[in-house]
Amino acid sequence: MNHSIDGAIAVNPEFMDELDQLFGERVSRSDAVRERFGKDESYHPSIPPDAVVTVKDTAEVSTLLVLCQRFRIPVIPYGAGTSLEGSVSALHGGVAVNLQEMNQILKVNHDDLDVVVQPGVTRRQLNDYLHDSGLFFPVDPGANASIGGMISTRASGTNAVRYGTMRENVLSLEVVMADGRVIRTGSRARKSAAGYDLTHLFTGAEGTLGIITEITLKLYGIPEAISSAVCNFKTLDDAVATVIETIQYGVPIARIELLDAVQIDAINRYSKTDYPLAPTLFLEFHGSDASVKEQAETVEAIADEHGGADFSWTTNTEERNRLWRARHDAAYACKALRPDGQIWATDVCVPISRLAECIARTREDLDENNLLAPIVGHVGDGNFHLVLLVNHDNEEEVERANRVHQQMVTRAIEMGGTCTGEHGIGYGKLDFLEAEHGVAVDVMRQIKQALDPNGIMNPGKVLRLTS
Amino acid sequence: MNHSIDGAIAVNPEFMDELDQLFGERVSRSDAVRERFGKDESYHPSIPPDAVVTVKDTAEVSTLLVLCQRFRIPVIPYGAGTSLEGSVSALHGGVAVNLQEMNQILKVNHDDLDVVVQPGVTRRQLNDYLHDSGLFFPVDPGANASIGGMISTRASGTNAVRYGTMRENVLSLEVVMADGRVIRTGSRARKSAAGYDLTHLFTGAEGTLGIITEITLKLYGIPEAISSAVCNFKTLDDAVATVIETIQYGVPIARIELLDAVQIDAINRYSKTDYPLAPTLFLEFHGSDASVKEQAETVEAIADEHGGADFSWTTNTEERNRLWRARHDAAYACKALRPDGQIWATDVCVPISRLAECIARTREDLDENNLLAPIVGHVGDGNFHLVLLVNHDNEEEVERANRVHQQMVTRAIEMGGTCTGEHGIGYGKLDFLEAEHGVAVDVMRQIKQALDPNGIMNPGKVLRLTS
Repeated sequence: MNHSIDGAIAVNPEFMDELDQLFGERVSRSDAVRERFGKDESYHPSIPPDAVVTVKDTAEVSTLLVLCQRFRIPVIPYGAGTSLEGSVSALHGGVAVNLQEMNQILKVNHDDLDVVVQPGVTRRQLNDYLHDSGLFFPVDPGANASIGGMISTRASGTNAVRYGTMRENVLSLEVVMADGRVIRTGSRARKSAAGYDLTHLFTGAEGTLGIITEITLKLYGIPEAISSAVCNFKTLDDAVATVIETIQYGVPIARIELLDAVQIDAINRYSKTDYPLAPTLFLEFHGSDASVKEQAETVEAIADEHGGADFSWTTNTEERNRLWRARHDAAYACKALRPDGQIWATDVCVPISRLAECIARTREDLDENNLLAPIVGHVGDGNFHLVLLVNHDNEEEVERANRVHQQMVTRAIEMGGTCTGEHGIGYGKLDFLEAEHGVAVDVMRQIKQALDPNGIMNPGKVLRLTS
Repeated sequence: MNHSIDGAIAVNPEFMDELDQLFGERVSRSDAVRERFGKDESYHPSIPPDAVVTVKDTAEVSTLLVLCQRFRIPVIPYGAGTSLEGSVSALHGGVAVNLQEMNQILKVNHDDLDVVVQPGVTRRQLNDYLHDSGLFFPVDPGANASIGGMISTRASGTNAVRYGTMRENVLSLEVVMADGRVIRTGSRARKSAAGYDLTHLFTGAEGTLGIITEITLKLYGIPEAISSAVCNFKTLDDAVATVIETIQYGVPIARIELLDAVQIDAINRYSKTDYPLAPTLFLEFHGSDASVKEQAETVEAIADEHGGADFSWTTNTEERNRLWRARHDAAYACKALRPDGQIWATDVCVPISRLAECIARTREDLDENNLLAPIVGHVGDGNFHLVLLVNHDNEEEVERANRVHQQMVTRAIEMGGTCTGEHGIGYGKLDFLEAEHGVAVDVMRQIKQALDPNGIMNPGKVLRLTS
């Protein structure tokens, strides 16, 4: 958080004239709009762009980029604004590209289990649209993010353990490059060995290499049966050992979430539940009727060997919904723990063998520093979230929170993990990217320099232009 | 195949002196060795390098690249030589880097289901090593390829439908860049949102961006039970419709291979089997005892609706092995069909909804052109192989084969597919890469130029340096 921001720079009036001529009423420079588009759902403050342009199609994005390139104006793509590391902040001013009206679902290919969408389509919009087709798109980061944004931050969420993250679920992208060229990174083929993997290069690039304007995603059949389960444990080690064995055994588990005692306490207060205050697993199984029964029974037996208590499972839709609503409301539950605090959500991901230790030591650091912070994890992936509840007006407290955060991320990297499993770098984790990747960041910089030589694409995000 | 090769160029004697000083007896310039390292398993002729250097560790690879960079000498990495598009041919002379002695399995992380290996480890070596651990590495392209080579060509094979291709199974790479820098592209975390996805950039780059020197792969638990099945159909459409429904139904099928009547005929002759001469599916199911039974029964019911005949399934190891040995020997069976022909194996991948049509029209083209070519496909992925049996001394026949090949690849691209699902571009499909990716190839070129400005890394492969 040690960055200096001068706020929006004064933008060339000639540029603004041309922008107005091209986009007319779809250019906004009002303070309220600029303020809104300079802010995501993170703890980072709003850093407004100089203008917001609402685009309608790929050709417009291309036209806009040609113009911005000519005047060397920064361009910041904006989807749903649900990012968590300041990815949309206009660190160097410029134009926010509002993609929310590019929200068409263009084609569902039922037999091929794929769908073509525009970047402004949201996750819920897509699944609502698909509902009657018997298909669904599984990646669920919690927030109702845009698909373009989810790709740009390599989002994942609760059921990545079964269905993968955005990294595994994008077949192809249409991208407008910094100079306005429009490219397509792949085809609708399920796999390809043809050329460099540009699809994955733009996935997770947070808009720093180009703007995604069309997406082909994988879809899945809605499972015949779904069951869910809950189980608590004496220790984090026991809970994680249960997860490790479950995965090794090959149970095709769909969701497996770990909530620590502090998070359970928050949920009990907020959602009026009465889960025992202990490390707890929330689980979900997808398959045939017989299969979800067998999966639940297998995990129950494994949990039993690790002292799991109160294991209960159900296929009842209402009970399942209650469980996952409680999980889904975890962030609100955290917030309610401390009305004078703001949420600072951060995440790391480690090899699962180190997960229990990483969480336990983070909990020690929190206690030592007198900080309130529930922990919830996508435990099948070794990924966990720390939800720091901090009063940002209290400098000394912010400093303590920074210290614990620094310790947690450094530890995760030392354990063979990563500084972020699913939130992205934005500008909140620039130093950690360097710590994690070392000289590989120079290679990333070479790619950035090659594809965006004037540095207009979401500048200041993901990496610094000089080491 | 319309390329002009001048053969190996005379290499600077000063360079050769320094090479000898650094690598001593591990430099080979004998004709026999050079000939061998200039050839893969494809129809492409041997194009020998000027020298072959056997490297022992990452530091040596780095030293070698610094030297080659200084003298602008081409560098061609060589794993097991099983590539199928001439990836190892020394089109512009230079040094072949023999990675076969970098064949250590460095660490199995049992709880994390990952393994760290050197690039020269072969697929069978790895699975033999893992056997007693209860774990396995699933990607199986048929040949006993090196892991480094499998990554470099984005290989897959029979069970990608369940376990993914190399693209989905590499967690991290150590890579030596063209200037000798050593980078690490990721961590052992299962997922990460930290920075550009360099892991996927080097996966499939065929050694044109750097040399892979260490690899972290995902592993899987050996399933409790395995069953296999076989079923034939009146038409390709029926067989493919069965596959589509099976996948939509969510059956977690492990292998699903389609063999056309010509391929079945070849197998019957070679493996002394008596499968009916019809489009046939070979299937495999992984899971618990109950699950593999349920999976087989589900697919039997689906096949039945599409006129599937003689459906039989088994968990008997001997019967399973007989089935998959027959599949595995498909290439030998093809070769035996025509002793005076050479195998020209090529592949495309299309959306599965177009697969039956793509195969049927290819078969029509083959018949019209009087060519013998069995077809076998990884049908769950929409990927199929054409095994052209051609006498390369017969120019007119080669021309016919070229024509059919061109038609097949062009059709696959028009159908929303790719010019290669798993073989790679090498130098055999350069034109098709352009046809498939268009202006995106310019972006690939910019990346190549940024990371290998002097063009020493496996030159002439994947893409041309100028459009």
